Amino acid sequence: MRPASFELPMDVLRTRQNAKWARFGPEILPAWVAEMDFSIAYPIRRAIDRLVGEQEFGYPFRAGGGHGDDGLAGAFARRMRARFGWEVDPALVQPLSDLVQGTFAAVWAFSEPGDGVLLHLPAYPPFHAAIHDTGRRLDAQQLRSDGSTYVLDLDEMRGIGDARTRILMLCNPQNPTGRVFTRDELLAMGQMAIARDWIIISDEIHSDLVYDGHAHIPIASLSPEIAARTVTITSATKGFNIPGLRCGAMHFGTAALRERFHARVPSRVLGAPGIVGIEATIAAWDQGQPWLDEVVPYLDANRQRLAAFLKAELPGIRFHAPEATYLCWLDCSDLGLPGKAADFFQERARVAFSPGEAFDPANDRAVRFNFATSAPILERILGRMAEAVRSNMR
Amino acid sequence: MRPASFELPMDVLRTRQNAKWARFGPEILPAWVAEMDFSIAYPIRRAIDRLVGEQEFGYPFRAGGGHGDDGLAGAFARRMRARFGWEVDPALVQPLSDLVQGTFAAVWAFSEPGDGVLLHLPAYPPFHAAIHDTGRRLDAQQLRSDGSTYVLDLDEMRGIGDARTRILMLCNPQNPTGRVFTRDELLAMGQMAIARDWIIISDEIHSDLVYDGHAHIPIASLSPEIAARTVTITSATKGFNIPGLRCGAMHFGTAALRERFHARVPSRVLGAPGIVGIEATIAAWDQGQPWLDEVVPYLDANRQRLAAFLKAELPGIRFHAPEATYLCWLDCSDLGLPGKAADFFQERARVAFSPGEAFDPANDRAVRFNFATSAPILERILGRMAEAVRSNMR
Repeated sequence: MRPASFELPMDVLRTRQNAKWARFGPEILPAWVAEMDFSIAYPIRRAIDRLVGEQEFGYPFRAGGGHGDDGLAGAFARRMRARFGWEVDPALVQPLSDLVQGTFAAVWAFSEPGDGVLLHLPAYPPFHAAIHDTGRRLDAQQLRSDGSTYVLDLDEMRGIGDARTRILMLCNPQNPTGRVFTRDELLAMGQMAIARDWIIISDEIHSDLVYDGHAHIPIASLSPEIAARTVTITSATKGFNIPGLRCGAMHFGTAALRERFHARVPSRVLGAPGIVGIEATIAAWDQGQPWLDEVVPYLDANRQRLAAFLKAELPGIRFHAPEATYLCWLDCSDLGLPGKAADFFQERARVAFSPGEAFDPANDRAVRFNFATSAPILERILGRMAEAVRSNMR
Repeated sequence: MRPASFELPMDVLRTRQNAKWARFGPEILPAWVAEMDFSIAYPIRRAIDRLVGEQEFGYPFRAGGGHGDDGLAGAFARRMRARFGWEVDPALVQPLSDLVQGTFAAVWAFSEPGDGVLLHLPAYPPFHAAIHDTGRRLDAQQLRSDGSTYVLDLDEMRGIGDARTRILMLCNPQNPTGRVFTRDELLAMGQMAIARDWIIISDEIHSDLVYDGHAHIPIASLSPEIAARTVTITSATKGFNIPGLRCGAMHFGTAALRERFHARVPSRVLGAPGIVGIEATIAAWDQGQPWLDEVVPYLDANRQRLAAFLKAELPGIRFHAPEATYLCWLDCSDLGLPGKAADFFQERARVAFSPGEAFDPANDRAVRFNFATSAPILERILGRMAEAVRSNMR
């Protein structure tokens, strides 16, 4: 197979000053932090080239009027309409530098210290931090394997927490399991939020990366009643591979919700994304889809290769192919590893995964695998994994 | 005189998508928002070109270890030592997206609604907003002209506010008067802060742009006792003309002060600057001084031309040449203008200044003049001003 135009070869990747490739030594193949080993979409490069070529580094003002931030809100609204048929008022959009900022700010605004935040585990580590660092209480619910997928037990969920539970911190598509919650699941969670007066903080940053057979639904799009209590947080930085540019958006379902937020967190405490992040995001959302239409099938091929390899060579690893994202959860509890799974693979396979215990403190025998790399590098990672596991079993 | 290498001609400026040139129509010459009509320093361009050329848009990781943020803190410490002989611990630096964010966050962290914030007027409009929008009380003190400069009356200052005054919001060099506070003034303010248990929020963003005969002194550098209650906020974006890139730094005088801040404002609520802003700032602070060494004398020549012109042609405008910054305060109270000074100059001179009332609600007969443009454009602005004032007097 011919390489895809966006594949980056190993010698280029090895020279990078990004966390993924630079943190570990040259003996390690990195499959951890959530960025892709791919070059970025042409419309984004062109937007950045224009800024740089013309030295447009002043206070931004876009043609047609308005600050850079307004341009971002408009592009968010166009993207939501085009991708999800969701009509959004740009006036309800708050620019962010990143998703973690939005999560912390929303937890802070919509709860008090000691209040409970419902979170499905395993979960992206900064969500744990947003609960712990602000003195909130983790109301955890485990996503459990039924042998073919990770199941959200809605009946169990209704029993989680108590009257002090104030927030449902939803991650959809879910990181690290790759679950895409269905309309029925989302409706059930929305109804729970209404019944128990929760605010929903919905991280939808992976919604650009959904595989055939699944569809992303913004939970706020389901009904005005759900929207009225939902803060949707997203960013082009994940799907379009520009995390270092730091730009995201936070959408409030109603003006009342936005005002309740800003009464606690003045907008200017959040700062503002830089012009390069803003223009790159607008280009991504308005013009980046053709690139994504090539990247997602490539990721899908990696996903299928990974699934087939694990089934054939490493059947002891509990694994369900993700429905979205280039991330997946490998539960290695049955492998009899001598220590933490991430340490094992780093030392014995020379592959760096994200450690499971950062996502679920109770499971240090799991890792999160980022398979957004070129097919040849994926093969090397898989080969090293299998060899390490086999040598451990001998 | 030959044009300076960094001058940008009018036809280039007119095509820009920045607020300064794009907000008003082509009939207007802009002398308002604080950016310079100059191209940026070569080391900054080179740093940005490298990022863009190599598509370094991942999660940053600098050679030698550490995240981008750590690189920023180190560059801040090197800059403070090199320019001001001030030894700073990089661990006490919090990255910001902009100065306004830092100001809001510090007001929020170190005072309660209803508490007083001492501010010298006229003052940069976001400082008013940081007090008003957070429900704090403005304890204002006027900087008054003594006929040759704007005077800070320290005896009067000792009588401002009451026991609920919690913060001195200092701007040094001062925007919009261009005052550079002397060591004696700063010491006196520092002693007041100790005696009355104030936190000092010191905006020092204009400290790169100080004219001969004056010297910037970071107030936190004066003594450990003053540092222990001082938050210093600065950025390369002003002196190096890259405001759209959004990157700044906030320094806490002690670890205890930093912890007191973070107990109220978790670091991640502040987000993080993008990689382009970070790398541009590091290049500016580490390698940008030769560019600044050419720009400041150019601004000084503009400043002297402006002073001579006003004295000769517009003696009715009360004006004192700034000691720093490319900004100055024109008090037009004696001109007998028919309305607000900014409106008058925009309509009659087709020059856009920043309106005085945004800096001092009691003075709509003043404007802030940004003279950071090329000498030919400055001449056109001055000519238009003089003609408008003369035609008003006829």
